[in-house]
Amino acid sequence: MKPDIAFVGAGNVAFRFSLALQEKGYNISTVYSRTEKSRDRLVRALRANGSDTKAAGRLQDLQEASLVVIAVTDDAIPQLVEEMAAVFSWTDSDNAAEKAVSRRLPAVVHTSGATPLQVLQPLADLGCACGVMYPLMTLSRNKNIEFRDVPLLLEASTDGLGTLLDSMAEDLGGEHYFYSSEDRLKMHVAAVFTTNFVNYLLGLAFPIVQHDHPLLIPSTIEAVRNAFLHTPASTLTGPARRGDMETIHKHLEVLQKMGLTEQEEIYRLLTDKILKKYHPEDR
Amino acid sequence: MKPDIAFVGAGNVAFRFSLALQEKGYNISTVYSRTEKSRDRLVRALRANGSDTKAAGRLQDLQEASLVVIAVTDDAIPQLVEEMAAVFSWTDSDNAAEKAVSRRLPAVVHTSGATPLQVLQPLADLGCACGVMYPLMTLSRNKNIEFRDVPLLLEASTDGLGTLLDSMAEDLGGEHYFYSSEDRLKMHVAAVFTTNFVNYLLGLAFPIVQHDHPLLIPSTIEAVRNAFLHTPASTLTGPARRGDMETIHKHLEVLQKMGLTEQEEIYRLLTDKILKKYHPEDR
Repeated sequence: MKPDIAFVGAGNVAFRFSLALQEKGYNISTVYSRTEKSRDRLVRALRANGSDTKAAGRLQDLQEASLVVIAVTDDAIPQLVEEMAAVFSWTDSDNAAEKAVSRRLPAVVHTSGATPLQVLQPLADLGCACGVMYPLMTLSRNKNIEFRDVPLLLEASTDGLGTLLDSMAEDLGGEHYFYSSEDRLKMHVAAVFTTNFVNYLLGLAFPIVQHDHPLLIPSTIEAVRNAFLHTPASTLTGPARRGDMETIHKHLEVLQKMGLTEQEEIYRLLTDKILKKYHPEDR
Repeated sequence: MKPDIAFVGAGNVAFRFSLALQEKGYNISTVYSRTEKSRDRLVRALRANGSDTKAAGRLQDLQEASLVVIAVTDDAIPQLVEEMAAVFSWTDSDNAAEKAVSRRLPAVVHTSGATPLQVLQPLADLGCACGVMYPLMTLSRNKNIEFRDVPLLLEASTDGLGTLLDSMAEDLGGEHYFYSSEDRLKMHVAAVFTTNFVNYLLGLAFPIVQHDHPLLIPSTIEAVRNAFLHTPASTLTGPARRGDMETIHKHLEVLQKMGLTEQEEIYRLLTDKILKKYHPEDR
């Protein structure tokens, strides 16, 4: 049976993740977020598909769900977990111990690549099954994405939650793997190189050719494709790889003339790295 | 009428370019290259499609073609042009001036992004129409490529050659534009950022996650797609963009622990650049 799911956070990840799960038949019962505006926007989007999702103003409301998905910024997680643990452990009964045992606490997962499972320990100590469901993709509220194209890295403190996360990932349709917190962090670092830093380089390239930058699309896609198909080392080309100093000087001259100092600096640095690797004898 | 074409050089660019033109009905009459092995391999490949392409050992043989395509490394072009000019201007007649005028010299183009049209001046001085046909794509002998996916940047010293290059590019099927030598060089620099340097970054990422690197394919492709669809600046995400110092420290720790010093250095540098741009107040 598909669990009722509550989301904490209503940003890009919560937006895309909750709608994707809803589409696969999961009931998103509750959205809690400190930012009322984004919370209500997400609740409206979910309700538009026929659910009766509640906008929650108190962490207490999360307890009714079977699974709570924490999708807030990394640095907000520890404090949030403390507060959730305080709320989840609270009971108005005189016989606190008995009530706590009889209550079914929700399982809790976060969606962060860089945050270890360990961050959920205060909730695990209360008896919550804890886990991670990290989408290896930049998600944006403004852009629909097919979750079958999004690899999911999973982690779970209990077999039961592991089985649940696995079947949720299966429903979403993409590749999914169980990853330790340590390996997930490594994948997160690597993704910074292949997405954020690649984006930074493209951002340096565009001003050099201005409105003509779309001409670079085929060669850029081909370079990425080839690197993954073979290995980057085997498919590296260009003046630095060839040790073609004359072209390198011409390029630096262009950047200088255009007054693009950041481009010039990065060009020098990366060219130097590649020359050192492939033409150490000339150095 | 389609011109007889001679190629000088038999490397990756000559290989792909000549076969693509042959496929579109151009007769590749001659291949000249100092490297006999690659020359004969290309001649065999062209003949396999039914042409009677000659392997030329002397620059003299190029004069029979209507168009000579120079596809050698950038730094070999000037010397080659000198030699071609010497051969093309030579005649065994007593009445040298008259013979030179009556001879039809071939048009000559090179395929280099970083080399100005000007490099062909010794041939232009003899009366050759001169031009450039630069494929904005890394070509590899080992990999077939659809030329309709390869933008071509053209330049021509005469209207006649311009019309010819335009119709050749039209036959090959891709986007093509007339570019000045100066603008072509700029596009060439930009391509170093978007292909060679992007490849270098992917080469840094793979060892961090080793055999699991294919998991990075969807997010990498998506980052490139988004950057071109919008602008890199508007689609940049990640810890540096957010100013998330804690995640940045975690990432650096991972790279340190793994002993990946080059990765650590580049991570620091690019993160610093992005932080300076988006969080100058924190610096």
